[in-house]
Amino acid sequence: MWRLHHFILCPFSRKVRFALAVKGVTHDLVQELPWEKRAAFTALNPAGQTPVLLQGGLVLVDSAAIVEHFEETLDRTPLLGSTPEARAETRRLLAWFDQKFYAEVGAPLLGERMYKRAVIKGAPDGSIIRQASRNADMHLEYIDFLLEQRAWLGGGQFGLADIAAAAHLSVADYLGGLEWDGHDPARTWYSAIKSRPTFRPLLAERLEGLPPPLHYDKLDF
Amino acid sequence: MWRLHHFILCPFSRKVRFALAVKGVTHDLVQELPWEKRAAFTALNPAGQTPVLLQGGLVLVDSAAIVEHFEETLDRTPLLGSTPEARAETRRLLAWFDQKFYAEVGAPLLGERMYKRAVIKGAPDGSIIRQASRNADMHLEYIDFLLEQRAWLGGGQFGLADIAAAAHLSVADYLGGLEWDGHDPARTWYSAIKSRPTFRPLLAERLEGLPPPLHYDKLDF
Repeated sequence: MWRLHHFILCPFSRKVRFALAVKGVTHDLVQELPWEKRAAFTALNPAGQTPVLLQGGLVLVDSAAIVEHFEETLDRTPLLGSTPEARAETRRLLAWFDQKFYAEVGAPLLGERMYKRAVIKGAPDGSIIRQASRNADMHLEYIDFLLEQRAWLGGGQFGLADIAAAAHLSVADYLGGLEWDGHDPARTWYSAIKSRPTFRPLLAERLEGLPPPLHYDKLDF
Repeated sequence: MWRLHHFILCPFSRKVRFALAVKGVTHDLVQELPWEKRAAFTALNPAGQTPVLLQGGLVLVDSAAIVEHFEETLDRTPLLGSTPEARAETRRLLAWFDQKFYAEVGAPLLGERMYKRAVIKGAPDGSIIRQASRNADMHLEYIDFLLEQRAWLGGGQFGLADIAAAAHLSVADYLGGLEWDGHDPARTWYSAIKSRPTFRPLLAERLEGLPPPLHYDKLDF
């Protein structure tokens, strides 16, 4: 059995959990609070970051390494696409969400609304939150733009671009950083994602002392 | 013929150029100054970042997408490793250098020593540079630690972990951010990299108005 070290508000952990669920890879969960820098966890990953997935002597560190591993070793449920063009487009969007969305939206919201509020009990910086929310709106517009041309974010098929986007958006949504009004294509797409049995369990989890907005786990939001 | 849009001090562009040279993929170069946000370049990559590689209708955006594309489509010169364990370790180190080293060393040095000095003619923030240099020293220690157990960074074979590390280190070194004294294993390894005909051309390039330290392109440094 695989064992996944994750943190419930880590978008990269959510990406891996959603992908493993879609691929039918069963696994145990171990929750890490990254700021605790648990020695046994740092021994697994010197970078100290979730997610880490292991089984026997094989230790997979980093969400891209985990996902690429199962694309290479499992025949079922390919999620990157079947042509070089489709795979390039999926990986472009993985970089978009994992790097750009995370830097512009996810990381600042996690810093101000999760880490400061729930961990160090400090006062969030309103200007950082407002900038992250403006950035989030630009990202929802880009998602609208893609979905006006395609059934799914990466193209005609559901795949890793949708999984990564849903993971990152769900964390920003938990932290109250998304305003869905005016983004009907993105909202329709995200409602379809939320209804998937492979994604719903993620939406049921809560970080103690930090409840999400009321609309967070609703299909009609 | 492939065409690569790159920037000479972008570590992700250097990673791709070194990997393409090792794989023998010939390509033209188009230099982009990322801060200029050239419209024709933003049309290729809405994220506005180098590197982008294209040929015919195929546009590869993001260094990981480019490298994984050639691992999948070319039989020669595999650089990720031949077993799942080796590939996982290579990808762990790619995340280490592309995310952690870049955030802790490359990005702050590029911001203070390249962008402020050569582009906006502003005054660099000494405290940011000192912190980046302390972080760089920690990274050189980690490289020493790996090389005390292995011939190359990812294991017994030269591969993408070496390529990514050399790309990121060479940019930090250009910007005067590396102190090699006390890091003999890292220095010996980097000297071997510098002597490769696939890497040497990168070391000959200069950004106008921003010369590197004298030791930068020397094999004995």
